[in-house]
Amino acid sequence: MRIMRAEQFKLDRQVEYGTPQQNEVVQTIVEAIRTEGDTALLRYTEQLDRVKLEPSSLRVTEQEINAAYDRVEADFLVAIREAAHNVRKFHEKQMRNSWIDMQPDGTMLGQVLRPLKRVGVYVPGGKAAYPSSVLMNVIPAQVAGVPEIVMVTPPATGGKEGIDPYILVAAAEAGVKEMYRIGGAQAIAALAYGTDTIAPVDKITGPGNIYVALAKRTVFGVVDIDSIAGPSEIAVLADDTADASYVAADLLSQAEHDEMASAVLVTPSQQLAEAVAAEVERQLALLPRAEIARSSIDSYGAVLVVDSLEAGIDVINKMAPEHLEVLTADPMALLPRIENAGAIFLGPYSSEPVGDYFAGPNHILPTNGTARFSSPVNVDDFLKKSSLIYYSKEALFANGGKIMALARHEGLEGHARAIEIRLEKEGGKA
Amino acid sequence: MRIMRAEQFKLDRQVEYGTPQQNEVVQTIVEAIRTEGDTALLRYTEQLDRVKLEPSSLRVTEQEINAAYDRVEADFLVAIREAAHNVRKFHEKQMRNSWIDMQPDGTMLGQVLRPLKRVGVYVPGGKAAYPSSVLMNVIPAQVAGVPEIVMVTPPATGGKEGIDPYILVAAAEAGVKEMYRIGGAQAIAALAYGTDTIAPVDKITGPGNIYVALAKRTVFGVVDIDSIAGPSEIAVLADDTADASYVAADLLSQAEHDEMASAVLVTPSQQLAEAVAAEVERQLALLPRAEIARSSIDSYGAVLVVDSLEAGIDVINKMAPEHLEVLTADPMALLPRIENAGAIFLGPYSSEPVGDYFAGPNHILPTNGTARFSSPVNVDDFLKKSSLIYYSKEALFANGGKIMALARHEGLEGHARAIEIRLEKEGGKA
Repeated sequence: MRIMRAEQFKLDRQVEYGTPQQNEVVQTIVEAIRTEGDTALLRYTEQLDRVKLEPSSLRVTEQEINAAYDRVEADFLVAIREAAHNVRKFHEKQMRNSWIDMQPDGTMLGQVLRPLKRVGVYVPGGKAAYPSSVLMNVIPAQVAGVPEIVMVTPPATGGKEGIDPYILVAAAEAGVKEMYRIGGAQAIAALAYGTDTIAPVDKITGPGNIYVALAKRTVFGVVDIDSIAGPSEIAVLADDTADASYVAADLLSQAEHDEMASAVLVTPSQQLAEAVAAEVERQLALLPRAEIARSSIDSYGAVLVVDSLEAGIDVINKMAPEHLEVLTADPMALLPRIENAGAIFLGPYSSEPVGDYFAGPNHILPTNGTARFSSPVNVDDFLKKSSLIYYSKEALFANGGKIMALARHEGLEGHARAIEIRLEKEGGKA
Repeated sequence: MRIMRAEQFKLDRQVEYGTPQQNEVVQTIVEAIRTEGDTALLRYTEQLDRVKLEPSSLRVTEQEINAAYDRVEADFLVAIREAAHNVRKFHEKQMRNSWIDMQPDGTMLGQVLRPLKRVGVYVPGGKAAYPSSVLMNVIPAQVAGVPEIVMVTPPATGGKEGIDPYILVAAAEAGVKEMYRIGGAQAIAALAYGTDTIAPVDKITGPGNIYVALAKRTVFGVVDIDSIAGPSEIAVLADDTADASYVAADLLSQAEHDEMASAVLVTPSQQLAEAVAAEVERQLALLPRAEIARSSIDSYGAVLVVDSLEAGIDVINKMAPEHLEVLTADPMALLPRIENAGAIFLGPYSSEPVGDYFAGPNHILPTNGTARFSSPVNVDDFLKKSSLIYYSKEALFANGGKIMALARHEGLEGHARAIEIRLEKEGGKA
């Protein structure tokens, strides 16, 4: 693992917009689903997923879900249940109420918060089909009070037949009652526009391949979408109190995700820098996914040496990493200065997998430096607000003149007259 | 104004993606600003806005702002100050704190909320340059605690020289200290990528023409953007207790915005339907912007007759209007059933301009049916969250086995080992 001065390092990543060919394929599929509905949906499922279905066989049956429970191990079930419980508890603390502010003149102003009505969760069929991600997408929507949560996932996973039982069990444990065996751009279009079999949704969340991502971009505006996730990232900020073997293991847990993942240590300690670089080599050799992790570490990994922890925080804030671990003598003391990070893991026992799987906070986090302006998936993502304005007669009469003045300065006489007609008719003065 | 059954009406609007030519122009401009910075910015400003500037003259000076104060009327200043005060008060009630949940085993979990660091507000130079919109964009960011808010607006407005003084005063009153005379796609690109003169921002908000909208779409991901606004809409739900002249005036206040605006009355009362249609004709003739309002009413306006108020609410919820007025005998009683609307105005004195200019809630609202899943501009739009995870040794030892089980079921051995190495080294059991 290369060691360098922080100034020499640049993590340069592009937003993925797909090739013109990929975009054209997606446009064609989305348009076909929009106009032909189920017919096109079944056609593309046969063509792209090599599975022939009827409208009546699109939906996953209760028997299949029960059968999936028989196929997963007991320790998985125990762990996923406890994880779901923790995720639910953490997200429940984010819940907010509608509020209303009452004023002495009889005016009431407020915000009405409501859950979205129907949300679609996409679960990919390939190597990135993670039961834990099902929890992280579904539970915040459920806590927000979304009454209809529907999951879609491709009918077959690679060579394997049927849907991964771990996915089905995770979805059922999270409380999903409506699941369809569809995937790709055709699934996104079906969720956005609806078909005879599948009712349209208000928002689509969940990761997918480039076709899924492009389809989500295409239907954005018809429905809401979550952000398009980039490759995963970890930055570790550590001083010489950190255990090099812990730091190395945490960097590798990120690097094993895929070749594009990034794992970076930022430290003022040359000694720790060297120890971690050596530990990464040692541990890397022992990993089943060593090839992926090696490629990731070589391309996007680095140990960055800085002059001080303060200088390290500046580097981190510029990077805005998806995951940040702080392994220093007093990690909490640094918290106020950390401006940009999706999730912040403090201290030696807050290894990233604790958050990936179990603690409760969401593991779907802003990537690609977007932690500068965006947030982990949370309950707010599934709530919408309406402003509430109940103006009293007294308030209108007292303020009508000022409202009319502003409208007339903007050249909007019709706005002014909507106030004026009330004042004139009911004897108010402008 | 046409009167029809609700079933016959369809408000069909498309998301605006621009022509291929417009997209190409925008790509060229954005790329030029990204690579050439100020040089390209000045070149496009001369070419498109017909104003020759130096880097040193891009920024609006304090003298110009002071001069603008001399050019606006006293009644405008009084009204905009009180409006700004009300907007600030309403948005301050939305403010939230970071929180932390402490658990008996020493674990701490929470959400850290922070303002974005730097936000750019675009103010168009043409007919849609509204001082009230400056307040509505700037104040929520300011309440969120954004330390740097920068305004950009074209150097000249149509035939007029210089920036509209009402815009400068509104911005100064809202607290903007940094303003640049740049507009169009070149301004958006300068905010996103930065130039020698203008530091890059984290988010860009505010309306603009199609080039501005396309440029915002292009830089999304590099920075955050607000939603792309569609044409304005009002729906009024009224029964026979409503005053037809008020309803008509409110519909027209929306219709005068532009030819694409939509104004719809939904009512179970045939008598009100006819009275409002007649009143619209009468009042329309007297408006300075009668031509615009007439076009809007003819193309997108309608009086929709329904069987009951309940049926009317169903129509409204499908429509998801930007503005909804409820003028019924007991408007508050209907609130729980209204699911989709950007802003809800209750009762006869809550005319839409009350909210457009003065009451406090934001007037930048979801259009085009997107109130199904999105919200008025609010303080949350300028805050980002980071998850906080401080796991205790006790918690890691108690739960490490379950975390490892989940990681191994997903085939991520490196994740499991990041936990295992700690348990082994410090004597925990998996």
